[in-house]
Amino acid sequence: MNRKIVPDIVKPREVISVSPDDNIIDSAVKMVDAHVAALVVFDDKENLVGIVTERDMTHRVVAKGLDTRTATVSEIMTENPDTLSPDDFAMEALDMMQSRHFRHLPVTDGGKVISMVSIRDLFAAVKTSLEEDIQETEAFVFGDRYGV
Amino acid sequence: MNRKIVPDIVKPREVISVSPDDNIIDSAVKMVDAHVAALVVFDDKENLVGIVTERDMTHRVVAKGLDTRTATVSEIMTENPDTLSPDDFAMEALDMMQSRHFRHLPVTDGGKVISMVSIRDLFAAVKTSLEEDIQETEAFVFGDRYGV
Repeated sequence: MNRKIVPDIVKPREVISVSPDDNIIDSAVKMVDAHVAALVVFDDKENLVGIVTERDMTHRVVAKGLDTRTATVSEIMTENPDTLSPDDFAMEALDMMQSRHFRHLPVTDGGKVISMVSIRDLFAAVKTSLEEDIQETEAFVFGDRYGV
Repeated sequence: MNRKIVPDIVKPREVISVSPDDNIIDSAVKMVDAHVAALVVFDDKENLVGIVTERDMTHRVVAKGLDTRTATVSEIMTENPDTLSPDDFAMEALDMMQSRHFRHLPVTDGGKVISMVSIRDLFAAVKTSLEEDIQETEAFVFGDRYGV
């Protein structure tokens, strides 16, 4: 039940990134190619300066009629996003993301982005964790061979 | 644990819809205004013919460089989407949506769309349900006043 963001929910991995000056179409193509719904935005020193999601593509690009050939990531990104720490607990991160309506958060360690977590990753892990708790409790109450 | 799609996960409600000939920008604006990430597509007899999501806006509009002033919903929608029934069980619907990578599904009753379910609605309900199961089991094992 005390699962942590790293390594229980996600492993450290390369996070797909764009720069604030990148083109919108190229950024959407990166999402498609990498099968992700969110990109981190790095400045030229690899500092995290923003996040761009499928929601931004819908709300801030398509709904606004933005010209995707000339607009840049800096116009649609969410600046200075909240982050998770590797040692954060999955259940608490999930509650926070639900209450603040976040769907993706970067995981940072010592200022460096080491992974990205989606609320669905967290839901899936917490669901598995709760199911294991129930199995363990049932094994305790009814004996180990209950349900076999 | 045997929660059903209706009424436990969602209530019957007006589902935000567009027509296949509708403009892409207007459809994105509808998503923004209604705070939804998916729209159903109805033909002129209110038959369900498709679904359009934020993912489609990213993958099939922005990444493709589609001209949002002239393109129509029919070009980007997923035709003949799967649907849920009001009597489907939440846990089974969740497993199905996870395995098929669906994030939204319309709920139909007698051929009529009566609601829309997101995988996050299902995760949240199943999580609550599992937590209640644990509380009940603990109350059974340790007595009603455990944890008070």
